[in-house]
Amino acid sequence: MIQIYTGDGKGKTTAAVGLAIRAVGAGKKVCLIQFLKGQETSEVKILESLDVKVFRFGGKGFVDPKKPLKEDVEEVKKGLEKAEWVCRGEACLARGSVTTDPYEIVILDEINVAVLFKLISEDAVLELIKSVPPETELILTGRGATPRMIELADLVTEMKLIKHPFNKGIKARKGIEF
Amino acid sequence: MIQIYTGDGKGKTTAAVGLAIRAVGAGKKVCLIQFLKGQETSEVKILESLDVKVFRFGGKGFVDPKKPLKEDVEEVKKGLEKAEWVCRGEACLARGSVTTDPYEIVILDEINVAVLFKLISEDAVLELIKSVPPETELILTGRGATPRMIELADLVTEMKLIKHPFNKGIKARKGIEF
Repeated sequence: MIQIYTGDGKGKTTAAVGLAIRAVGAGKKVCLIQFLKGQETSEVKILESLDVKVFRFGGKGFVDPKKPLKEDVEEVKKGLEKAEWVCRGEACLARGSVTTDPYEIVILDEINVAVLFKLISEDAVLELIKSVPPETELILTGRGATPRMIELADLVTEMKLIKHPFNKGIKARKGIEF
Repeated sequence: MIQIYTGDGKGKTTAAVGLAIRAVGAGKKVCLIQFLKGQETSEVKILESLDVKVFRFGGKGFVDPKKPLKEDVEEVKKGLEKAEWVCRGEACLARGSVTTDPYEIVILDEINVAVLFKLISEDAVLELIKSVPPETELILTGRGATPRMIELADLVTEMKLIKHPFNKGIKARKGIEF
C-alpha cells in the first residue's frame, strides 16, 4: 500500500517516524531513506537503535531550488537508486538475510520535495511506486506531491499549516523541529 | 509552546509519536497521556522502553458520542487530572526525581476528540493549556480542536484527508493503523 504525507504544515516526517515506531512495535522490518538531509536529526539514532535501517542522502546545506548544486542532484540520484534496491528486496540479501524477505515498511522521507525541486523526475518516482510489491508499505513524505503521485497512492494526508511559530520569527529548536 | 494536530486525516497520533522519538533522541523527558484508548497500540511498548512515561485512559470499546458510557466519562476525567498533575511538575516529584524538573514534552493524545464528544468541557482544556509553563512543549492531538483551542496554540497543523483506504473498505492493520 502507498501512503503520501504532503502539504506545508508540520508533521510529515514526524508522522513517518511515528509509523516506523508503531511498525517496529508490531515486529515489522522498517527502512528509512532520507532525501535532502545532509545532517542527522535527533530521531535517527533512536531509530537505528531499534533496528530501523536508515540511509541518508543530501548535501551539506539547504538546497536552493533555483540553483541546486551538482552534489544535491547526485545525492538524490543515489537515494533513488537505494530506494529501488530496497524495494526490489535486494537490500535484504546484501545484509546477509537468510531469506529474501523484503522490508515491510519503506519510508522515502522528503522525496516529494526532490520532485518539486526537479532534482529527480516525477516519472522516475512513479516508476518506483509502481514497482513496489503489494505487501510492502511505501511511505512518501514532503510538500509538493504531484497529482499523478496522489493518483497512485492509497492513502494521502495533506498536512495543512494553520499556524506556525516560524511566522512569528521563532527559530527551529533541537529535539522539536530537528 | 502549544502544538495542535487536528483534522480528519491519518497522521495525528503518529506525528506526536514521532515528536516523542525526536525529543528522546535529543535527551528530553517525554510524557504521553492517551485519551479514549482502552487498548495498547503497537508503539507504546517501544516508547516505554525509551523511558517515555505513558498513561492510558479509556474504556474497553469505541466511544459512541451519542451515548458515552459512564466509564468513558470517568476515564477522561482521570486523564485530565493526570495531565494537570504532570503539567504542574508534580509527576516528577512522585517518580522520585531529585529535582522538580518537569517533563519537557507532554502529549495529550486524542484529547481534542474528548472535547468534541463533550466528555470534558472545552473550558477545562483551555485552563490546562493556560497553566502550562512556557518551557513545556504541550502537544494536543485529535480531530475537533475548537477555535478557542487553536487561538491559544502556537503551532497548528490540520491533517486533511485526501484519500483513505478505509473508504475502499480496507480494515485497520496492526503495525500500521494501531
